[in-house]
Amino acid sequence: MEHLQQHFTVTYQYNVFFTSALFQVSNKLLNDFLVSRGNSDTVKKIFIVIDGGVANAHPVLVQDVKNYFKTYPTVQLIEEILVIPGGETVKNNDIYFNEVLTAANVHGIDRHSYIAAIGGGSVLDMVGYAAAVAHRGIKHIRIPTTVLSQNDSGVGVKNSINYFGKKNFLGTFVPPVAVFNDEQFLPTLTHRDWLAGISEAVKVALVKDVRFFEWIENNADGLTRRDINVMKYLIWQCAQLHLAHIAGNDPFETGSSRPLDFGHWSAHKLEQLSNFDIRHGEAVAMGIALDTVYSYISGGLSFNDAERVIQLLLKLGFAVTHPMMEVTATDSPILLGLQEFREHLGGRLTVMLLNAIGEGTEVHNIDTTLLKQSSDILLHFQEKALIK
Amino acid sequence: MEHLQQHFTVTYQYNVFFTSALFQVSNKLLNDFLVSRGNSDTVKKIFIVIDGGVANAHPVLVQDVKNYFKTYPTVQLIEEILVIPGGETVKNNDIYFNEVLTAANVHGIDRHSYIAAIGGGSVLDMVGYAAAVAHRGIKHIRIPTTVLSQNDSGVGVKNSINYFGKKNFLGTFVPPVAVFNDEQFLPTLTHRDWLAGISEAVKVALVKDVRFFEWIENNADGLTRRDINVMKYLIWQCAQLHLAHIAGNDPFETGSSRPLDFGHWSAHKLEQLSNFDIRHGEAVAMGIALDTVYSYISGGLSFNDAERVIQLLLKLGFAVTHPMMEVTATDSPILLGLQEFREHLGGRLTVMLLNAIGEGTEVHNIDTTLLKQSSDILLHFQEKALIK
Repeated sequence: MEHLQQHFTVTYQYNVFFTSALFQVSNKLLNDFLVSRGNSDTVKKIFIVIDGGVANAHPVLVQDVKNYFKTYPTVQLIEEILVIPGGETVKNNDIYFNEVLTAANVHGIDRHSYIAAIGGGSVLDMVGYAAAVAHRGIKHIRIPTTVLSQNDSGVGVKNSINYFGKKNFLGTFVPPVAVFNDEQFLPTLTHRDWLAGISEAVKVALVKDVRFFEWIENNADGLTRRDINVMKYLIWQCAQLHLAHIAGNDPFETGSSRPLDFGHWSAHKLEQLSNFDIRHGEAVAMGIALDTVYSYISGGLSFNDAERVIQLLLKLGFAVTHPMMEVTATDSPILLGLQEFREHLGGRLTVMLLNAIGEGTEVHNIDTTLLKQSSDILLHFQEKALIK
Repeated sequence: MEHLQQHFTVTYQYNVFFTSALFQVSNKLLNDFLVSRGNSDTVKKIFIVIDGGVANAHPVLVQDVKNYFKTYPTVQLIEEILVIPGGETVKNNDIYFNEVLTAANVHGIDRHSYIAAIGGGSVLDMVGYAAAVAHRGIKHIRIPTTVLSQNDSGVGVKNSINYFGKKNFLGTFVPPVAVFNDEQFLPTLTHRDWLAGISEAVKVALVKDVRFFEWIENNADGLTRRDINVMKYLIWQCAQLHLAHIAGNDPFETGSSRPLDFGHWSAHKLEQLSNFDIRHGEAVAMGIALDTVYSYISGGLSFNDAERVIQLLLKLGFAVTHPMMEVTATDSPILLGLQEFREHLGGRLTVMLLNAIGEGTEVHNIDTTLLKQSSDILLHFQEKALIK
């Protein structure tokens, strides 16, 4: 009579669908998905939350959604469609989180019903968290509308809101039941949002796939010219690398290793320092730039490769540094990001650096003096780019 | 270019340890566990939350905890030990939930550190939920102190708080990293709490294990006389059946089947109707009684077996019905429990009934007229028991 052992495995499975005009009645993809989930003996409901920015850019979306479920009443659409602000606001204030919970309560949305979110990464994060905890988990469908959410955050297994002024302080690891990447949302993105999401593709290429990095180099013009087919390939390839990484490496992050957080320790901090005026993708581009130059300065990466990365980021229209990003002293505000990153990871500090393009390597210590040198070099690159 | 498939499995593993005087320095079990988790290269912290009822009944507990971690500094004990009310109060008001989150923030408790809860099921539920969502999951250790939590809720994978006045409206499925069942907490339980937890053992025996049911019949005297060795066996056996059930059947309850919720649709409602004056275990005893008689009335169970169950419950000191539990009309308040149970399960109503002692069977419809008859019969049993 000493101890009982508990041991079980849980299988998680979902598809990331690529489509166009998801809510056009001629597009049966979503309905086919809902039909495929079976259990026709009970009425399932679906509650839909839309990012305000998306609702504005697509004024007929709400009506399209209503028509769609009128045509295909496989699930019962809750008449109230909740439109909430996009961007970090929706994660910073828990009134929006509570609005989703309230809807789940008022409309009697049970665990086999659905909460779907249409929007950028912040809206998906917040709605995903509410769905994950209401009734211990209502089924969640993600319909990401930005480059960033379609190729990165929206296809993964995490959700969150900010709390105590700390990014992603509350959240869970709960996969969605499906992700629908609808290309029709991409053309209405502002140019800033169109570009911002590309940095996560550069990141995953740098850490995992030199050929994808070369593809991005060769297609930088198409990307900045807003060629939709080029962007669609970038999103597909980036989403695929993210999904493969998650499935192959500790999906719920029980360890301290997070290779996909390359460049993120400073990016998270910069977003916060800028009061989220700087987009996540823009901050990630600067974070990549800093950790790439640091990879050179600390010995892993050749100067040529470091320069190649910086030049690609500049060519894609990214700034590679920012006054709030600079390391000028041992108490520069950005350095707090290292400590906060360690705390959020738990365990010891684990930062991904580059040995080569397409090949990451983890270190557990960052030298502040070398980081200051890296910051100086970046400033030089940025100033040279501005002169051109 | 149609869709990407995501597919992975996650393995969950934890032990339920049985011990005595966990925080006596002579007892190395907890420290051995913490040492076994490795990673000595970083300082891990442990934050401890104690149920106020337990702290009162064991006035040296806080000091014992402090001495323990002074002797074994494998992890760094956070000096602040949080004492909170026990019982449903702690789940009804989210200030306690927020207190745990605040502690995680203020003390910098990261994802590889621990939050341990010492207490009854309500405290474990609430603290487990806070630990599950802070930083997307801080490691959680459960130290259940009641019969009910040691044999049932504390060894499982669920956590929760109440919200919108609804039981367990918010929560997650997140297993603890370990459970420590310390028998030294049992003798200080009130007689009511000592007895209340036995009903979950009767329940799991009825649904799964006729021999365990017979054992309870044969040991009912020992249980009511508070024989600690008899109770230890009951807890061990009941915990084992629960663990085996969870591991073998949809641990995170993605379907609508919940055999371990036998008798619970009315029990949950009765708790709420009584403003939680009636203990969960007491309500479960009445819920078992009602669904057992219903199993007879609706044809599955023999009268003899139904009577045997009711007699055992009465012998164990349980009431088998209550004015708020009675079904006297089609709008009796307790009947709302059926609808709420369906909503919480999601999908269609699925209620466990008995074919025989030790053999459950699921139905998807409950006949209100038969339920009223069952309620009448129970009242008869209860009155006869009171006359004796």
